[in-house]
Amino acid sequence: MHIAVISGPNTNLYGLDPSGPYGTLTIADIEADCRRRAQALGASLDFAQSNHEGELVDLIQSCRRGGAREADGLVINAGSLSYTSIAIPDALAASGRPAIQVHVSNVFTREAFRHHSPISAVAVGCIIGLGPTGYGMAVEALIRRLTA
Amino acid sequence: MHIAVISGPNTNLYGLDPSGPYGTLTIADIEADCRRRAQALGASLDFAQSNHEGELVDLIQSCRRGGAREADGLVINAGSLSYTSIAIPDALAASGRPAIQVHVSNVFTREAFRHHSPISAVAVGCIIGLGPTGYGMAVEALIRRLTA
Amino acid sequence: MHIAVISGPNTNLYGLDPSGPYGTLTIADIEADCRRRAQALGASLDFAQSNHEGELVDLIQSCRRGGAREADGLVINAGSLSYTSIAIPDALAASGRPAIQVHVSNVFTREAFRHHSPISAVAVGCIIGLGPTGYGMAVEALIRRLTA
Amino acid sequence: MHIAVISGPNTNLYGLDPSGPYGTLTIADIEADCRRRAQALGASLDFAQSNHEGELVDLIQSCRRGGAREADGLVINAGSLSYTSIAIPDALAASGRPAIQVHVSNVFTREAFRHHSPISAVAVGCIIGLGPTGYGMAVEALIRRLTA
Amino acid sequence: MHIAVISGPNTNLYGLDPSGPYGTLTIADIEADCRRRAQALGASLDFAQSNHEGELVDLIQSCRRGGAREADGLVINAGSLSYTSIAIPDALAASGRPAIQVHVSNVFTREAFRHHSPISAVAVGCIIGLGPTGYGMAVEALIRRLTA
Amino acid sequence: MHIAVISGPNTNLYGLDPSGPYGTLTIADIEADCRRRAQALGASLDFAQSNHEGELVDLIQSCRRGGAREADGLVINAGSLSYTSIAIPDALAASGRPAIQVHVSNVFTREAFRHHSPISAVAVGCIIGLGPTGYGMAVEALIRRLTA
Amino acid sequence: MHIAVISGPNTNLYGLDPSGPYGTLTIADIEADCRRRAQALGASLDFAQSNHEGELVDLIQSCRRGGAREADGLVINAGSLSYTSIAIPDALAASGRPAIQVHVSNVFTREAFRHHSPISAVAVGCIIGLGPTGYGMAVEALIRRLTA
Amino acid sequence: MHIAVISGPNTNLYGLDPSGPYGTLTIADIEADCRRRAQALGASLDFAQSNHEGELVDLIQSCRRGGAREADGLVINAGSLSYTSIAIPDALAASGRPAIQVHVSNVFTREAFRHHSPISAVAVGCIIGLGPTGYGMAVEALIRRLTA
Amino acid sequence: MHIAVISGPNTNLYGLDPSGPYGTLTIADIEADCRRRAQALGASLDFAQSNHEGELVDLIQSCRRGGAREADGLVINAGSLSYTSIAIPDALAASGRPAIQVHVSNVFTREAFRHHSPISAVAVGCIIGLGPTGYGMAVEALIRRLTA
Amino acid sequence: MHIAVISGPNTNLYGLDPSGPYGTLTIADIEADCRRRAQALGASLDFAQSNHEGELVDLIQSCRRGGAREADGLVINAGSLSYTSIAIPDALAASGRPAIQVHVSNVFTREAFRHHSPISAVAVGCIIGLGPTGYGMAVEALIRRLTA
Amino acid sequence: MHIAVISGPNTNLYGLDPSGPYGTLTIADIEADCRRRAQALGASLDFAQSNHEGELVDLIQSCRRGGAREADGLVINAGSLSYTSIAIPDALAASGRPAIQVHVSNVFTREAFRHHSPISAVAVGCIIGLGPTGYGMAVEALIRRLTA
Amino acid sequence: MHIAVISGPNTNLYGLDPSGPYGTLTIADIEADCRRRAQALGASLDFAQSNHEGELVDLIQSCRRGGAREADGLVINAGSLSYTSIAIPDALAASGRPAIQVHVSNVFTREAFRHHSPISAVAVGCIIGLGPTGYGMAVEALIRRLTA
Repeated sequence: MHIAVISGPNTNLYGLDPSGPYGTLTIADIEADCRRRAQALGASLDFAQSNHEGELVDLIQSCRRGGAREADGLVINAGSLSYTSIAIPDALAASGRPAIQVHVSNVFTREAFRHHSPISAVAVGCIIGLGPTGYGMAVEALIRRLTA
Repeated sequence: MHIAVISGPNTNLYGLDPSGPYGTLTIADIEADCRRRAQALGASLDFAQSNHEGELVDLIQSCRRGGAREADGLVINAGSLSYTSIAIPDALAASGRPAIQVHVSNVFTREAFRHHSPISAVAVGCIIGLGPTGYGMAVEALIRRLTA
Repeated sequence: MHIAVISGPNTNLYGLDPSGPYGTLTIADIEADCRRRAQALGASLDFAQSNHEGELVDLIQSCRRGGAREADGLVINAGSLSYTSIAIPDALAASGRPAIQVHVSNVFTREAFRHHSPISAVAVGCIIGLGPTGYGMAVEALIRRLTA
Repeated sequence: MHIAVISGPNTNLYGLDPSGPYGTLTIADIEADCRRRAQALGASLDFAQSNHEGELVDLIQSCRRGGAREADGLVINAGSLSYTSIAIPDALAASGRPAIQVHVSNVFTREAFRHHSPISAVAVGCIIGLGPTGYGMAVEALIRRLTA
Repeated sequence: MHIAVISGPNTNLYGLDPSGPYGTLTIADIEADCRRRAQALGASLDFAQSNHEGELVDLIQSCRRGGAREADGLVINAGSLSYTSIAIPDALAASGRPAIQVHVSNVFTREAFRHHSPISAVAVGCIIGLGPTGYGMAVEALIRRLTA
Repeated sequence: MHIAVISGPNTNLYGLDPSGPYGTLTIADIEADCRRRAQALGASLDFAQSNHEGELVDLIQSCRRGGAREADGLVINAGSLSYTSIAIPDALAASGRPAIQVHVSNVFTREAFRHHSPISAVAVGCIIGLGPTGYGMAVEALIRRLTA
Repeated sequence: MHIAVISGPNTNLYGLDPSGPYGTLTIADIEADCRRRAQALGASLDFAQSNHEGELVDLIQSCRRGGAREADGLVINAGSLSYTSIAIPDALAASGRPAIQVHVSNVFTREAFRHHSPISAVAVGCIIGLGPTGYGMAVEALIRRLTA
Repeated sequence: MHIAVISGPNTNLYGLDPSGPYGTLTIADIEADCRRRAQALGASLDFAQSNHEGELVDLIQSCRRGGAREADGLVINAGSLSYTSIAIPDALAASGRPAIQVHVSNVFTREAFRHHSPISAVAVGCIIGLGPTGYGMAVEALIRRLTA
Repeated sequence: MHIAVISGPNTNLYGLDPSGPYGTLTIADIEADCRRRAQALGASLDFAQSNHEGELVDLIQSCRRGGAREADGLVINAGSLSYTSIAIPDALAASGRPAIQVHVSNVFTREAFRHHSPISAVAVGCIIGLGPTGYGMAVEALIRRLTA
Repeated sequence: MHIAVISGPNTNLYGLDPSGPYGTLTIADIEADCRRRAQALGASLDFAQSNHEGELVDLIQSCRRGGAREADGLVINAGSLSYTSIAIPDALAASGRPAIQVHVSNVFTREAFRHHSPISAVAVGCIIGLGPTGYGMAVEALIRRLTA
Repeated sequence: MHIAVISGPNTNLYGLDPSGPYGTLTIADIEADCRRRAQALGASLDFAQSNHEGELVDLIQSCRRGGAREADGLVINAGSLSYTSIAIPDALAASGRPAIQVHVSNVFTREAFRHHSPISAVAVGCIIGLGPTGYGMAVEALIRRLTA
Repeated sequence: MHIAVISGPNTNLYGLDPSGPYGTLTIADIEADCRRRAQALGASLDFAQSNHEGELVDLIQSCRRGGAREADGLVINAGSLSYTSIAIPDALAASGRPAIQVHVSNVFTREAFRHHSPISAVAVGCIIGLGPTGYGMAVEALIRRLTA
């Protein structure tokens, strides 16, 4: 069982600005939490962050069967690209792998343009507003779903 | 620590129609799962389902400080009322208690009118499309948040 | 063959205000007409009216296979809830029974918010603007359809 | 008592493609059903079909008092013109005769552009989604209304 | 002269949360103020609050001529149902009695969905944002109008 | 100097229903008025009416240089097609001739769908709501413009 | 018979910029043309231009029965205020006098915000795009209508 | 305690056309009613009406602390400018004084463009549809609020 | 292998106005080009043009299996009807034959109402903006697709 | 070289309310800053402020060639009229002079209705949100552009 | 004669998932087909694919006169970026070279957000829904156009 | 004092196409102008251009306190990404540094999609349409603001 966690633009700033809407955990803390939870459920984990849409697409494509990072499922937080990218959900849909979408903050209490994400319709489901632990919860839910 | 789980119209049909978008677990199965998870984390739990908006508002109001069902936090799946009710989010906002919203199916792959819920903006966050276990995940996340 | 006719808010005022858009027949007259037509076609009939959305949902749910009011098909006029309720069409869709929607007045000559009803998309069809006899026509059409 | 039934573009294909949304009865079957029902109620019946909007307008105009096809009421299924034609409802309104609109399929379960018809606002009422027998039901309802 | 004051979902929480937008007077205080003002103008008063739309519709229907709570006029604050209910304005319109609508807070400084209420178009007028005394002002204005 | 006056669906009913929005002059009266005014200004006039969009397009095309009905300018009242036809304004634009649009009634006091006409943007100008004499005014204005 | 012609902001620039969409006649030329045409039909004429909405409202109000400029009818070109002013159409409606609206240029070939004018719905009709002579045509049409 | 009442375009016509939506009281009657009510509560009152937006802005600005018409609060009925003016609400917001908005007629039963006023969001509240006495009610409510 | 090419209103003007957006080839040139290309690929070809929507519907219906003009596939350029006709795409869908849509000009650089065509969703695909040779390319692509 | 700076409604309040979004400089300070900067670049300067749209239009018209205030270019901050006035941009466009628009506050962080100004499309460009010095920057940019 | 073919995100997955909407040809097959067709017409061809918008912009810029990949024309399928990218059409417009846009699948039968592409308005034309051979057809059409 | 100037896709083409809307200065000219102005005010300057959104985000992030390019303020012209990118304004907001947005051309006279930029709401202000010198003006305004 192998899980890929992919994180988009500006998520590398999590925890650096405690007054912002994203809490105090850094992206490294989040990766550690995901690894710990995956390990506890007997799964391995790939964790990647990029501010470049093209790299995120390449990463997701490489999770396909036979790809360089072939995975059984994906956790995706596309960060600032969540609201506008079509290339990322198209790559996810083409991956043939289940994906769970994570929003760290509650997007529904923020600007209207954050209330809709094209990724949501190609994901299995979404975990929204539960903070950085939303990543770990998604990892666990994905592994449980894949092993069910 | 006391948690209230409140479930709206037509959620009492979960599991009765396996061909539908809601899986095979019944509302009783969901309640049992929630109780088990709350207990494991040292919390008690109130579970209620109603097809009546007025009863749901009364229930949420009774979760306020000093109310008949006073609770430290709420898990809410307003069912078919998720998309149109203002009375439910107004009662939640007035409760002064954190709430996590649950959608059992992925609303973003269904009709457009299910893509927006006024409840989302008064909730702490949402768990969407992860099936009946979304309830239990919300109970755990809420208890962890309240004890953090 | 058993048919359920379910009538929503303010339809209990039909016939009480002859200057209004609903004619002079009362809801009791409509029930009698439906019973007579059903009987003529060898079917029995349940007729219920409520101003409460929750009760209407309970009623529709009880028409499911094995329910307290199990029926072969439904005639539904959700009255003032026709334009906004999602709980009623969700219950109808979950009932697994064919339903015919009735509007007594021609909604297309009234306010714009009456031109769309979420029920229409889960119903087999609609009879609109043909007055109180629309109920009876729906009962007959439903029985003929079920016996075809 | 004389009734005109007027049927628009592509309704002449009814029944030719059983896999489509219009059932197995042809336009000739529908005409026969209408004639039989009108006769049973002591009324005569004109039945016309055309794929040309201009011919449909000419037909409706000729149903006016003193026109070549003067009628007491009309049943109109404008077929593919139902959603866009203004000339047809303008001719109906100018006819001074009551009309009942028929949609054979349930337009509310099809593309959004079929959910609105300018004809609906000038008709007495609509019968939608009840199949080819919707024509016959409309004929009967119209005669009963005219003799009431 | 008899006046009915009807108050909807969550108005029973007025005054309980002084930090909210509704001031410090409770619904009981509001009722007392309304009674005092009505009495001063020689009118009697019925005051009712419910969180259930169906009960509010039943209440309004009972204010019709010959109804259990027959009244000469109504003051209506539908609370959280002000923005979405059609059943309440339909019942008001069917009552044949003048009604004045009250919003305790200034809805125009709140969320966009609170800027429109279907009740406004069936009411004589509205008193908005003048706090709990808006109820009493409406009672007085209604009595003066009825006695003019 | 030769002018073509072209009149669309349902304009042949003008004057037949005095209670409608189009006055008491018939299309024949309008033609006579146009002829008289054209003659007074030394111009000849072609007058045509059709309920068929295709015929109207053929007519307009024949007004082009070298066409069977070659004209120096056109007066167009597309009747019920004014609001939806693209073929008519496309033919007018392709004619290379100036056209003045006429609406007999004031479309801005009628249904919203009559407030916009694709013809307006290819016409020189419009005369709206001045009754049947709007045709004659347009003929005169067109001749004066062509002779200026 | 007395006619008031009222002309709004920037119409005093007509004819000053021959490259613009308004032709070469000045507002003084237009006034002279209107006077000549009114005189020929035995009517007197008031002509006023202002860049101030308030003055235009005052002017229109003074055209009411018994006002300082009492008139039998008005010709109105509100210039740049045509698209946004409510005060002008409200004053026109309150005047109890018929008004004809003039647009010198064809507004339908210009920016979208010029395609709608609140004045159109309170006017008898509109003359659009026929250049400065549109004023004089409106004066004549108004006098003919008032003497009919 | 000093109150300013400011009234906009076309409100000077109130009472002059009894068939209109504004009743039979003139603006002078309204001023008298406001003065009487203010006096009874120990307050003085400035009353001004203008058809000019600029004058209304000047008036409101002069109500600021230290202005020529310094006032403790304002009652504003911007008349025909209620729906479009930004300058008036901007001046009100800049005045630092509470304002109550009055609509004499029920704007929600009239054209859609009257359903929204930018003034509403800078006012304390609104009194709508209660006729000319709405002014006096607003004066009293404002004085009571300022003295509370 | 038999192909039908059907061309709508105003396409008969192609090439007649070289300053327009349609190039210098006439509809006869286009027909010749299509015939030549079809012949080269061993297919026969029917070519028809009409300005009448009804005739176009009749033509398309006659391409069905067993129809007078039975064809294996269709090339359709509905001309000015491309943007508004529902009857044409409904006839195409009912034909059970693959169709390729052609726009001679690039509709996406023209008025917004030309950016959408209901035909596109029932066609196999579209060739847009490649001039009159788009017809011939569509004929070739259709034959290749049918023989693949 | 002569520059006109024209400032609209409520800009005369700049600096009077330091807690507002417009800073602490008064309109007199702004005028002084503009004069100083113009002088430094060898240009003279006219500075005018008005709360009346009509006066602003008159002012802009007088800046035309040969007008009373003939200017080589304009700096315009229409204040509260920026968002709704058409008369001001029409006068600017007719002036034949380049204009630079100034917003003192960042309109894009305020209400949505302030995000669009019809003036922007007739101006050379805009300086937004840079405070009162935006006026002076615009004066300098305009002079530099005119001398380039 | 040199042609550049540029292909965007996820087009490198063509042919890898035969159940998807893109057929069985891989991007390498498409390149081979393009080369073969270009060669047959005496042209050379550059073929590039990238999942990165920035790289696509760099590529298009390098096709300008004097650029590293100077080309006479471009064929562009921006893949998942077709619907949202402005940088790609801006680069195409700045290239001064004609471009033909290709969509492999029929975007008009897919999600609404795929029905519009900003690229379409800067391209010469589009080939949509004709499968992977659409690339080759575009190459041929472009060469023919450039040599015409 | 250190200022970062960041320039997005296609701005590297400025000055290369003199017929376009961006003038004759190249991006190197702009950089030189910015450096000269910064130096004159005693500030240093970083200038970067990229066609890649990800690189722009990386650059902006590196301007944060302690970043590789730590700056006191930013000047941003996101070029073709101005209208759609969320990642760039999110990075700017997270930078904790003031930014001034520059558009070289007047976006309000171009396509509607260029009238709104998500960057505007996180910037201090905008300089629009003043050509390449807008960059330098922004540098100066930023330095003056930071030293104020």
